[in-house]
Amino acid sequence: MKARIAVDVMGGDHGPAVTLAAAARFLAAHPTVELLLVGDESVLAPLLPTHGLTERAVLVHAPEVVAMDESPAVALRTKKKSSMRVAIECVRDGTAEAAVSAGNTGALMATAKFVLKMLPGIERPAICTALPTRKGHTHMLDLGANVECNAEHLFQFAVMGSVLAEATDDNLRPRVGLLNVGAEAIKGNDTVKATAALLNEGPVNYIGFIEGDDIYKGDVDVVVCDGFVGNVALKTSEGLAKMITQFLREEFGRGWLSKLAALLALPVLKRLKRRLDPGRYNGASFLGLQGIVIKSHGGADVDAYCSALAVALREIEKDVPRRIDQRLGQLLTEKETA
Amino acid sequence: MKARIAVDVMGGDHGPAVTLAAAARFLAAHPTVELLLVGDESVLAPLLPTHGLTERAVLVHAPEVVAMDESPAVALRTKKKSSMRVAIECVRDGTAEAAVSAGNTGALMATAKFVLKMLPGIERPAICTALPTRKGHTHMLDLGANVECNAEHLFQFAVMGSVLAEATDDNLRPRVGLLNVGAEAIKGNDTVKATAALLNEGPVNYIGFIEGDDIYKGDVDVVVCDGFVGNVALKTSEGLAKMITQFLREEFGRGWLSKLAALLALPVLKRLKRRLDPGRYNGASFLGLQGIVIKSHGGADVDAYCSALAVALREIEKDVPRRIDQRLGQLLTEKETA
Repeated sequence: MKARIAVDVMGGDHGPAVTLAAAARFLAAHPTVELLLVGDESVLAPLLPTHGLTERAVLVHAPEVVAMDESPAVALRTKKKSSMRVAIECVRDGTAEAAVSAGNTGALMATAKFVLKMLPGIERPAICTALPTRKGHTHMLDLGANVECNAEHLFQFAVMGSVLAEATDDNLRPRVGLLNVGAEAIKGNDTVKATAALLNEGPVNYIGFIEGDDIYKGDVDVVVCDGFVGNVALKTSEGLAKMITQFLREEFGRGWLSKLAALLALPVLKRLKRRLDPGRYNGASFLGLQGIVIKSHGGADVDAYCSALAVALREIEKDVPRRIDQRLGQLLTEKETA
Repeated sequence: MKARIAVDVMGGDHGPAVTLAAAARFLAAHPTVELLLVGDESVLAPLLPTHGLTERAVLVHAPEVVAMDESPAVALRTKKKSSMRVAIECVRDGTAEAAVSAGNTGALMATAKFVLKMLPGIERPAICTALPTRKGHTHMLDLGANVECNAEHLFQFAVMGSVLAEATDDNLRPRVGLLNVGAEAIKGNDTVKATAALLNEGPVNYIGFIEGDDIYKGDVDVVVCDGFVGNVALKTSEGLAKMITQFLREEFGRGWLSKLAALLALPVLKRLKRRLDPGRYNGASFLGLQGIVIKSHGGADVDAYCSALAVALREIEKDVPRRIDQRLGQLLTEKETA
């Protein structure tokens, strides 16, 4: 049985140049995968053979494209034949098991929610991504879909994140931490305190409050926070990593001895870059939908886009949405019978 | 006219070993400064001469010490003769113009608020610190004192941060940004939108919403956010910087060629470390009080503690609390006459 992924070929800053090259590389590496390449037929038909996309690659026509800066509401109303929407409709109709897009995040979220619908009991998808840590990686959610959250929302994020980590990391008891301003029980705002009370009832392997510096320590597998805090933490990290990279470049460029050192240190710095490369962790999951939708960074290169396709494949193989649905259903039943 | 700073000698992880050494170094560098060294007389009297603290250093007796993990409420009620409290009382009584402590943050905040009182119209102090950026530094507040904020609070943080940047950086029009999950006006939660409306009326040089990665870009002089978000962003940054440092160390230790490169790169890495060193930016201001209180990191070394003393001196020279009071008063008058 082949896994089928619908690819929004037109989405992202680079469009087909990146998405088709990534598709070809991904197919070569995964013989059991079939890709539905969604986009404008007249544009794509001549490009497919040049990328060697002849087998296990099916062109699906979609004449429209959602612009990167288009309002989600406008895209939803007026772009009914967009590559993004048609890719998601492939998941709804069962011709694909996951959709991947590097397009406009807001539009992708609105379209995914509208076309696929949410799982029972979930109001909005949460955005979840893996981040590197000192010891491996961690999953963090929400990263910006839900900027106002109550305890029930955060509780759902914890359950969904835990199921994702269990499924995709083969981790039986992922450690779930709640992001806060201190580790003591009295710290934080009312929402995190109320969430802690819900999590203490035992639906996940809840390890308590964690602080910002714990994200990268590697002692927690799922970091739960509202979308405002998660988005700021993620983007602050991106900004700091860029500043450190710039400082390294500047300092290694200061004088001939530094430049010589840089030459010798090049393999070291390359390995460092690889370990921190956000592209390796490209591919954010929209959790809580009745189907798999993976968001790639808009500016992803071929390597990074392949990472996003790999995230989609892993979630297909592990049947993540069904597992989340089952777990939430269980919790609901327990609550009703309690 | 000498500037007088009261130093909580007993506070912090290292106590007098660090604070007295820093005091001696700071006095040598600043001939117009006088230090009030607050702590247990029997402990300190023999130590002062060994640190060469004979001139412009006055011992002020305080028999008690607030423990690093003591509850703020308990410290406030039971430790009326603590070094922290007596140092702040020196500011209240006019024998010093600023207090510096590396002690328990919560207790310092509660004591400062109780002893000095807030400026009219301010409810709680905001914690503000300088952070390095690609082009210099920026001031960020609040960093954890206020975990639930409304628009009025964030508005006050913006005004106080702007006055601080104006005064201590001699910056006539500091650029004030409001931390959010996107730069577009429709992004964010209700609180940041309401704050933006207040700031758009012109009390500060408001440049609009900024995102997490803008903190380190160097295009904003004051970053405004609630204490929950600010604390998470700051600690996430600390955690990421530590992880990158660890990765650098690991990669430079992998094989003899890397080790050779490390040897050559040592001066470069030292310069990088200096640029990122949190100690250089040690010394967080409690803004909104009727007096100057500076919090040093508990684990500060002598260099870092000197930075905190320098922050105190700068705020004394620039008369920061009076300037904040004046600006807030002006805004209140404008509001009433409008």
